[in-house]
Amino acid sequence: MSEAKRGYVRPLDLKHGRVDLTHGSGGRSMVQLISELFAKHLGNEYLGQGNDGAVLPAPTLEGRAGRLVMSTDCHVVSPLFFPGGDIGCLSVHGTVNDVAVMGATPLYLAAGFVLEEGFPLADLARIVESMAHAAAEAGVPVVTGDTKVVERGKGDGVFITTTGVGILPDGLELGGARARPGDAVIISGSMGDHGVAIMSKRENLSFDAPIESDTVALNGLIAAMLATGADLRCLRDPTRGGLAATLNEIAGQSGVGVMLHEKAIPVKPVVSAACEFLGLDPLYVANEGKLIAICAPADADRLLAAMRAHPLGREASRIGEVIVDDHHFVQLTTAFGGKRIVDWLAGDQLPRIC
Amino acid sequence: MSEAKRGYVRPLDLKHGRVDLTHGSGGRSMVQLISELFAKHLGNEYLGQGNDGAVLPAPTLEGRAGRLVMSTDCHVVSPLFFPGGDIGCLSVHGTVNDVAVMGATPLYLAAGFVLEEGFPLADLARIVESMAHAAAEAGVPVVTGDTKVVERGKGDGVFITTTGVGILPDGLELGGARARPGDAVIISGSMGDHGVAIMSKRENLSFDAPIESDTVALNGLIAAMLATGADLRCLRDPTRGGLAATLNEIAGQSGVGVMLHEKAIPVKPVVSAACEFLGLDPLYVANEGKLIAICAPADADRLLAAMRAHPLGREASRIGEVIVDDHHFVQLTTAFGGKRIVDWLAGDQLPRIC
Repeated sequence: MSEAKRGYVRPLDLKHGRVDLTHGSGGRSMVQLISELFAKHLGNEYLGQGNDGAVLPAPTLEGRAGRLVMSTDCHVVSPLFFPGGDIGCLSVHGTVNDVAVMGATPLYLAAGFVLEEGFPLADLARIVESMAHAAAEAGVPVVTGDTKVVERGKGDGVFITTTGVGILPDGLELGGARARPGDAVIISGSMGDHGVAIMSKRENLSFDAPIESDTVALNGLIAAMLATGADLRCLRDPTRGGLAATLNEIAGQSGVGVMLHEKAIPVKPVVSAACEFLGLDPLYVANEGKLIAICAPADADRLLAAMRAHPLGREASRIGEVIVDDHHFVQLTTAFGGKRIVDWLAGDQLPRIC
Repeated sequence: MSEAKRGYVRPLDLKHGRVDLTHGSGGRSMVQLISELFAKHLGNEYLGQGNDGAVLPAPTLEGRAGRLVMSTDCHVVSPLFFPGGDIGCLSVHGTVNDVAVMGATPLYLAAGFVLEEGFPLADLARIVESMAHAAAEAGVPVVTGDTKVVERGKGDGVFITTTGVGILPDGLELGGARARPGDAVIISGSMGDHGVAIMSKRENLSFDAPIESDTVALNGLIAAMLATGADLRCLRDPTRGGLAATLNEIAGQSGVGVMLHEKAIPVKPVVSAACEFLGLDPLYVANEGKLIAICAPADADRLLAAMRAHPLGREASRIGEVIVDDHHFVQLTTAFGGKRIVDWLAGDQLPRIC
């Protein structure tokens, strides 16, 4: 019987085609979307198994015992394409980073797509290519996935939920509850780039210098930091809610306060100017390629040196210290010598920043 | 300082409240939603760790070597509540089943929620409670999660992406490419219940007997099947595209044909009647609590007996056999002695069935 008689379908029109409801219905056109787009770009031996899930080698630590780490993140960023990245690479970076800040080596990613009917296949292809590039760069393959399609007006282009699994060697304990008074607070680079890039694009603003998202996978930087043997208490990536929300969370979990020094916190001048224009505080703005490290004070210099030696930590800076505070406040000594409380995000929100 | 001064917020109004954009913005009201709703119902020692991911005991197999299995599924079912279930329990069952049909023991679930602004918190609470109940019943905890909120009109109430991780003992190899001519094709029960329950609810139809979704976790049934030691080639849950799509996929992957016997395929009379009314073929309709087993013919009776002894396999039936066929067709001998090809889903689609 000829291919035509078996319902042969033409190749996907990746230039002018659009997502339709059949792409999510379990039939031949879903299979086609998966093979001609997802498998083409993301393909690897695990994704290629073609079963309901991926069978993966059990993680090993060269004989050492370890634990699993699992993290998941829904990505609904708007716009889908922004200076410095897109939802595709962001969805890889975000979850790789969430696993890596636990101290774990990220091993595998799963990706789930909710597509809106009518979404251009060309845009989807760009997004999947960007994911593939990010996954290859981070060294973490997408091993399994799912695709669903919702009617026009019931979604917003593409949402991507990624889930990461990694392995954490026994003996390494990082966590938000482990900060102690006296610990050094370190960040890996400038604050606010991602959120301001998104907001500027959304508001159609342009500034003297381009503002690009910092979205990047941090597992390499973190491996270099762990290799120093410094006594790390906690690593976190300050995404939604920025530095302020993340430090407030840690302060609450550890039952401590944090004192920051404004002058020590790197913020790019153009980001600072844009924040002023947009009415934002860079300490509350999301980052996607930066981390906070809380570290025993004696090891802070060694850790900083290792970070600055890595391409993603060149601007690493010691920005403050953990203090005793029954109120668990995060405070800031300003450039003018005053003090203010850096509370949780209060009024303003930045929805759909990641 | 008083709680009020630190921005104390009143408890969530789970009766009349609605999701708003602050619930996804990384600030205090997101923390509140997580603690008062998600953690309250789904809470366990892993979810309670409060870091960017969950640290989990490495899976053990009592000294045997094993591999990881990972699977992810986006759930966009519409309506969110349907006879026999809702998106909450469905999102647990769907992913538990995808891991279990690989032969693996499901261990951990991650859950990502995309919420639409304005969604009633009372409905969200019902959904999360249903997830919690399903997870407890299946014995698979939700260990990590994420919540995002999109603006009104950019989503559709709730989408839930669940990702499961399980452990597969070395030596157990199941897969769609392992079917061989002569193998028995077995299903665990009646076909079409889930899809017809959804479509009837959507079309506001009522029939003489209630039609309920069969949504349920199959890991217990599968464990009982594996315990028989029967030579299983492949297990699959025939969800989107139903029995027809799943068997066509297996036929293609294994390079074989399948011959089914219509009379042997259990379809409830009310489902059959509803299908006729709705213009559906029950072989193409999604199931959420049934499985297909391909098994060496010599072991089929033993396997069937074990399935029928389990509450979820009482109506298990041998419905056909794998045959040599270079075209990889799935065929059906009809009740009248004729034959027809059961091709991939052609025209009709059932969007958002799961």
